Amino acid sequence: LGYAWERLTSATQATGAALCVGIDPHPSLFPTFMAAAEDPLQSFGTTVVEATQGLAAAYKFNVAFFEAAGPAAIASLRGLVRSVAGGPALAIVDAKRGDVGHTSRAYAAALFDELGADAVTVNPYVGYDGIEPFLARQGKGVFVLCRTSNPGAADFQQLQCVVDGEAVPLYLAVARKVAEWNRTHGNCGLVVGATAPSETAAVRSVVGALPLLLPGVGAQGGNLGDAVRAAQGGPFLINVSRGLIPDGSLAKGEWHDSLRSKAEQYLDAIRAVRIEKTTP
Amino acid sequence: LGYAWERLTSATQATGAALCVGIDPHPSLFPTFMAAAEDPLQSFGTTVVEATQGLAAAYKFNVAFFEAAGPAAIASLRGLVRSVAGGPALAIVDAKRGDVGHTSRAYAAALFDELGADAVTVNPYVGYDGIEPFLARQGKGVFVLCRTSNPGAADFQQLQCVVDGEAVPLYLAVARKVAEWNRTHGNCGLVVGATAPSETAAVRSVVGALPLLLPGVGAQGGNLGDAVRAAQGGPFLINVSRGLIPDGSLAKGEWHDSLRSKAEQYLDAIRAVRIEKTTP
Repeated sequence: LGYAWERLTSATQATGAALCVGIDPHPSLFPTFMAAAEDPLQSFGTTVVEATQGLAAAYKFNVAFFEAAGPAAIASLRGLVRSVAGGPALAIVDAKRGDVGHTSRAYAAALFDELGADAVTVNPYVGYDGIEPFLARQGKGVFVLCRTSNPGAADFQQLQCVVDGEAVPLYLAVARKVAEWNRTHGNCGLVVGATAPSETAAVRSVVGALPLLLPGVGAQGGNLGDAVRAAQGGPFLINVSRGLIPDGSLAKGEWHDSLRSKAEQYLDAIRAVRIEKTTP
Repeated sequence: LGYAWERLTSATQATGAALCVGIDPHPSLFPTFMAAAEDPLQSFGTTVVEATQGLAAAYKFNVAFFEAAGPAAIASLRGLVRSVAGGPALAIVDAKRGDVGHTSRAYAAALFDELGADAVTVNPYVGYDGIEPFLARQGKGVFVLCRTSNPGAADFQQLQCVVDGEAVPLYLAVARKVAEWNRTHGNCGLVVGATAPSETAAVRSVVGALPLLLPGVGAQGGNLGDAVRAAQGGPFLINVSRGLIPDGSLAKGEWHDSLRSKAEQYLDAIRAVRIEKTTP
């Protein structure tokens, strides 16, 4: 196991379940007490990270919301990623990049060297040589988009494709390829939507014990229990982003405590399913 | 036709052929005389834009190389995009984004509002609701990845898929969907590799007169004549990036003139094919 995946395992053991805390700093989520902050994205990220210390096996930073806020917010993102990276929890930069090799090498440099990510998300559409520059980073984790959590996932990911004379949906063709790439690189994981438990179970059966990252619980409506049951059989991370964020009218201390308490509830709910599953 | 596509048409008419100048500021391309520049990415971009004034129908800015250079380079990118956007040539931001709707809305804000792009590239893997936030920007152009220029394109894009009971390669299933989305939004285009002329011709026959963006001429080995012949039947842009950049040891004036002369050669070569094609 590479360095990122070793830390994923130890963080999961330390917290008792694999909760990934998603940092999606959309301005609508900022509490009122942060309104006057000089750098609200930085304040929001730092506060979410502090409030969930010891509960999160990983933090997933959604690059889009930082990019939308301009260059200074990218500097804030770098600070946040570096405050987490290399520590007990994994710093995942959710960027969903993927381009021809020459360009993907620059994206890998941007995410791993410039921002300092422990792990990233990538888009497989471009094929192997566009993903290889990420996989070549030994010790870093690479979650490849497989079956996304949104309704439009059916447009292409569910199309039946012919692979080695057999009909399989595209997302499983991707899962097979990722399992193959992993035999060379050893640092592959997959993104599967918590909204799609039967597809998640199918992916698990194809990729064995590769780590799965499951977004879509909470605001997107994925059922936590179904997602956790489907992901069994290897390491996985249940991501919750908006679902953790308290009412913005709360005062600072209450907002912080409410966030921590929501994270504890998710952690307990994940643990409960795992115990249910392993109890005969 | 939306605003971006109107400008693409008028710029193509003004220059006599649709050359897209790619700005991929990899440090290895910077000439020696720029070594002492305070902001070499800005200098490189500005010099390439100035040297090709009146020859380019569009400029394509590759975000990856700016991201790899850190937050200050994103500010330089913004300055470069805004120096071109709204002028006679189209400012395309080549970012290949694509995520669930909630996140794609933030990416659309980052590319169109924050950077100021006239047009962008997006990745279709996530499906319609992940692309819709870009398509919803009336007057902006959206080039959807269809058949990329790299060897790994075959991994998934060439898989035979079942669509309405018929077997078609994935890239053509994408082309059909994009043509369908265009009937609602009117601002779709497609990215097809200049390295894949027969696939480009197949895409053209499926999407009618939608604009095509063709990277892959020059460094990636695509044959210009084959690419131009395959793209006939609607607007298209032939992108050249590294292929335009002169030897870095040239002095400033010579580097500038050499770059302009290379762009003129590509423009002449594109025009020559179009004349060959239209002469009985």
